[in-house]
Amino acid sequence: MRDPRHDILFEPVKIGPVTAKNRFFQVPHCNGMGHAMPLAHAAMREMKAAGGWAVVSTEECEIHPSGDLTPYVEARLWDDRDIPALALMCDKVHAHGALAALELSHNGPTASNLYSREVLIAPSHQPTKYGYPHQARAMTKHDIREYRRWHREAAIRGKRAGMDIIYVYAAHDLSLAMHFLQRRRNQRGDEYGGSLENRVRLLREVLQDTKEAVGDTCAVALRFAVEEGLGPGGVELAEAKEIVGMLAELPDLWDVNLAAWYNDSVPSRFAGEGAQEPFIAFVKQATSKPVVGVGRFTSPDTMVAQLKRGVLDLIGCARPSIADPFLPQKIEQGRSDDIRECIGCNVCVSGDMTISPIRCTQNPTMGEEWRKGWHPERIAPKRSAARVLVVGAGPAGLEAARALGQRGYEVSLAEARKELGGRVTRESRLPGLAEWARVRDWRVGQIHKLANVAVYLDSPLGAQDVLDFGAEHVVLATGCHWRRDGGGRSHGSAIDGFAGNPRVFTVDDLMDGRLPEGKVVVFDDDGYYHASVAAELLRRRGGEVIHLTPEDSLAPWTLNTLDYRHMRKRMAALGIEALVSHDIVGYAGTTLAVEDVWTHRQRELTCDAVLTVTARLPDDVLYQELCRREAEWTDAGIRSVRCIGDAEAPGLIAHAVYAGHRYARELEEPAVGEVAFKRHFHTADAGDLLRETPVQQAR
Amino acid sequence: MRDPRHDILFEPVKIGPVTAKNRFFQVPHCNGMGHAMPLAHAAMREMKAAGGWAVVSTEECEIHPSGDLTPYVEARLWDDRDIPALALMCDKVHAHGALAALELSHNGPTASNLYSREVLIAPSHQPTKYGYPHQARAMTKHDIREYRRWHREAAIRGKRAGMDIIYVYAAHDLSLAMHFLQRRRNQRGDEYGGSLENRVRLLREVLQDTKEAVGDTCAVALRFAVEEGLGPGGVELAEAKEIVGMLAELPDLWDVNLAAWYNDSVPSRFAGEGAQEPFIAFVKQATSKPVVGVGRFTSPDTMVAQLKRGVLDLIGCARPSIADPFLPQKIEQGRSDDIRECIGCNVCVSGDMTISPIRCTQNPTMGEEWRKGWHPERIAPKRSAARVLVVGAGPAGLEAARALGQRGYEVSLAEARKELGGRVTRESRLPGLAEWARVRDWRVGQIHKLANVAVYLDSPLGAQDVLDFGAEHVVLATGCHWRRDGGGRSHGSAIDGFAGNPRVFTVDDLMDGRLPEGKVVVFDDDGYYHASVAAELLRRRGGEVIHLTPEDSLAPWTLNTLDYRHMRKRMAALGIEALVSHDIVGYAGTTLAVEDVWTHRQRELTCDAVLTVTARLPDDVLYQELCRREAEWTDAGIRSVRCIGDAEAPGLIAHAVYAGHRYARELEEPAVGEVAFKRHFHTADAGDLLRETPVQQAR
Repeated sequence: MRDPRHDILFEPVKIGPVTAKNRFFQVPHCNGMGHAMPLAHAAMREMKAAGGWAVVSTEECEIHPSGDLTPYVEARLWDDRDIPALALMCDKVHAHGALAALELSHNGPTASNLYSREVLIAPSHQPTKYGYPHQARAMTKHDIREYRRWHREAAIRGKRAGMDIIYVYAAHDLSLAMHFLQRRRNQRGDEYGGSLENRVRLLREVLQDTKEAVGDTCAVALRFAVEEGLGPGGVELAEAKEIVGMLAELPDLWDVNLAAWYNDSVPSRFAGEGAQEPFIAFVKQATSKPVVGVGRFTSPDTMVAQLKRGVLDLIGCARPSIADPFLPQKIEQGRSDDIRECIGCNVCVSGDMTISPIRCTQNPTMGEEWRKGWHPERIAPKRSAARVLVVGAGPAGLEAARALGQRGYEVSLAEARKELGGRVTRESRLPGLAEWARVRDWRVGQIHKLANVAVYLDSPLGAQDVLDFGAEHVVLATGCHWRRDGGGRSHGSAIDGFAGNPRVFTVDDLMDGRLPEGKVVVFDDDGYYHASVAAELLRRRGGEVIHLTPEDSLAPWTLNTLDYRHMRKRMAALGIEALVSHDIVGYAGTTLAVEDVWTHRQRELTCDAVLTVTARLPDDVLYQELCRREAEWTDAGIRSVRCIGDAEAPGLIAHAVYAGHRYARELEEPAVGEVAFKRHFHTADAGDLLRETPVQQAR
Repeated sequence: MRDPRHDILFEPVKIGPVTAKNRFFQVPHCNGMGHAMPLAHAAMREMKAAGGWAVVSTEECEIHPSGDLTPYVEARLWDDRDIPALALMCDKVHAHGALAALELSHNGPTASNLYSREVLIAPSHQPTKYGYPHQARAMTKHDIREYRRWHREAAIRGKRAGMDIIYVYAAHDLSLAMHFLQRRRNQRGDEYGGSLENRVRLLREVLQDTKEAVGDTCAVALRFAVEEGLGPGGVELAEAKEIVGMLAELPDLWDVNLAAWYNDSVPSRFAGEGAQEPFIAFVKQATSKPVVGVGRFTSPDTMVAQLKRGVLDLIGCARPSIADPFLPQKIEQGRSDDIRECIGCNVCVSGDMTISPIRCTQNPTMGEEWRKGWHPERIAPKRSAARVLVVGAGPAGLEAARALGQRGYEVSLAEARKELGGRVTRESRLPGLAEWARVRDWRVGQIHKLANVAVYLDSPLGAQDVLDFGAEHVVLATGCHWRRDGGGRSHGSAIDGFAGNPRVFTVDDLMDGRLPEGKVVVFDDDGYYHASVAAELLRRRGGEVIHLTPEDSLAPWTLNTLDYRHMRKRMAALGIEALVSHDIVGYAGTTLAVEDVWTHRQRELTCDAVLTVTARLPDDVLYQELCRREAEWTDAGIRSVRCIGDAEAPGLIAHAVYAGHRYARELEEPAVGEVAFKRHFHTADAGDLLRETPVQQAR
């Protein structure tokens, strides 16, 4: 069973009046479901509790309509009508012996009030953080008293919902308690501004208020950012040390991290496991209260080292708990090699950013617990003795084979290449993407434990091979390739001079080791990570690189994964020139004709090569050939042929994994109609929540 | 009563099997409420019907989970569970004798499927329109049959909900029926691609399907874009003429416009009333069926001219019906001067864009019909004989005075300047903003009809004046001014060399007629319209202008009002240089030190002046002084003093109007608790919708 070296992870920890049963602490994280999808949200949190986390937290929770985060969907406790949704979560979390934690927040000038239409409030008059064209007004003393009352009342509502831990939130540049600390947001002349003591006053008061209001039965946690990286206008480490000293014993728990969100949840391309330690290590020296911190921890040995070296008392996780809700249980059961490790791609973050339910590259069941009834560790047994042939061992094929194997099907996985993983293996060799190989590694590890899954490398199959194979079900996960002709979002057809031009390269060429020499223009009409990764690769080899895009900013989709600022900084540090709002008109010899998309002024650039990143085309030749020979399927014993993942429609690795998982879940299962999941509907009565899933009356 | 010249507007129009009672047609428009707020949505549509529109349409309506528009919130008919929400709308619209219309759409590669997680579909393999990192796959023949089935079933569901008109949607570059027309999206080699006849095939089939499915009792409308302005890759007018010829008598109604949305709903800064006529005028010559088109029509004379000249049969309106839901009734009653004319600011569009309920600069009740019970024409009578002093006749003060006057209060409106309108008057003199003066004009017109509102121009008031005035309630709407010191979103404190520098100008200076000479850098740290309007003003006077911003694109918030592309094109056409991703470090003499925000490379620009657009500060000296003298209020007979609009927190004109209206609505009314409006909650049972507002069983 459990490795004795990991015993320390399963010691209980007293947090004020409550006790965490072990040291695994799911810190607050957004999920794109929040108050809009309370049943889905509660089921997702329950899965963490079922997986062994001692504490399961909400996302940030709005305490008042003047701190409305629309369009972002977080938790909400504006009045008593919001209690049932969180009570539902508490009951589900408690059913597994875990504690429920609630992160209260009033976001001040980082809210929007787009829905509530209240006037925004802030320490001083100021614009909103996210560009909304209405300013926040300076809070009066009356406002401060009201804010404290709202926070107290929300804490009491949280207690009534069943919460065990109530957070005061002063992190991520997202809450008033933090905004009062910041010189750039707080220019007050009264006792709440100026000196550090004054700027800390409100945070201290709110901590005291919360302890008085609910501290008898609830622990009061402080989530606190120790560094913003913005110089003296923001929270800096030196001042943060003073603040921790001033408030040391006031909260029952310190949850410490970096701000803003992009510095806290850094993609693996830009930071590794435990990267926050140099910033937060001081906290435990300054307080006797337990300390929790994060570091995208997936290795139990690293976790133990954090505890033994006195950095942390509790292992905080957001992303690792999304990739594997059963991480604690697996360590407890001595199955650490079964942990589905977070790859740090931050696709989870993109759910919140795009106002859609959270998804995860590694864990295709994330967000599907309620609406599809998917469990990350369990799956329905097979319906028949049918054999399944999976063609292609990229992310879709590996996941299909694994999940089909888990169901008990006899699976054959045929891969044309000499290595498993497909695009995952290939992309993980590009700069910064090494951890993405975990998508392959976990699946290969699981498949090796399944006697009913046979893997064949170096096995390209033709249509006749498939017909001769003898499988009842065939699923093609044969991937895709990048277009060479420039066609994509900006160009419905090919760009002049691209097709057949040996100076035009694609990401596939790079992954095949065919690299351009000299000065290269990277043409980014894709908008996510491939172009900047390619630019980085080429630049690190010494060539001059221009990152050109018809968009008005580089790779705008990377904003949704928190890559953007890190990517821009790295591109700048590497000396890669950014040329935005420019499209390519044609390429001849070494002359690239480009056009400003707004002025339509054309000019010429000289470059030795173009790396074109526009769109991809499915590698579905085998599928198309099998479709043409559909008449032969019955004689061959074939009952179904499907095409999934990039071979159906190129997307993210996350889409491919989801497609493979969904294929395995649905094989031979009854059809479910047009809408393959449960939905939330919208009424004027919060009490209706109670109907589907009985919960206790709010306590 | 009605002007006989306007009689033609009130003729009934037969549309297939149904008859519109007059020629006022609210075409489909988004509203940010859709399926997420069905009660609010139904009440908003009902108000249009109550105001005299013969036809009231939904926004676009998703017909299948593979055309999921998340995060955008539109209508939805995925299955029968979605019928109650639209049945509610139909019942409310029918109660006023209007027809209900439903705009069915499958958005293909312009959908997201972020919520449904289905694979996107398109005529050919292609990237998504909005940058989502997953491509759409080419539809098979089977997919085309399925799509037609979904559309047919959605039409039948619409009929069961009570819809009178079912739209086939081929406009705005947003639906498959249009995508098949476009060469850039359709590269199919089968009978659905290639020749025009082939590309029109699917649209023709869907029109026929819809007529067969519901044409016995429902009219079938076609919303069709005649020009995209994208050259031969898109729909062009010449080809559109052929298409109209090919399908002339197939739909029961032609609803014709321009694509994409930014070319259809052009802000008044870039297009005036009736701007689409040159494009759509041909349609009536090609069909015997009624034709509806839009043109932000607010003048009944213009409308009549459109009919008499044979351009249109029905006056289509989206924005004018938002600004004044009672526009038809007012014309019918001979009260055209009471029409609250749309100003073309497109704040309404920003609701959909920011996934929040629609709001309107002119009509502060828009979106509040259900949740606050606000009616655009009616308001509760006064609660007492109290007198109210309104200080400041900008948008907040004018609206407060008007609405208080409508309630019957004795109102005194004191304005320090010699003209009414405040910022509205001043901004409307800037390039392109002339129509915004309608915010002032409508309110001044209404106030002049109210004997109980006295207006005093040229009347600056001090605190003692207010105390001596004798009003029980005082509301200060004294506006704001632009910061001169550079402080704002990017700079928590002043920029070196700005304060007191006569070379630094603000938008207030421009509006006061104090204009910089020579080469000017417009520093845009605001992100909406002021900087580009100022740049345009200065450039048109002949000076060299650089539009500089620390953001990575110019004025990003203008994307939410559809200004962005027009603004970029105008800036480019005027020769205004765009310098993005650059911040200002300091200004000395004529040397402006700027820094690339990513590389941190500094360089110097020479300029004669800087026009700084960063943030605003309230002009609340009078309010602060009155607060300091609160002890004297009782003796002065004052029961309340409030500060509203820009004087409380600078925002949009829309925020100021809303603040004035809300003040008037709430004066002396009972307090309503922390959440001053009704909300939707979320359950797993759509039938719950029926509880609050009984509707008939879906027919």
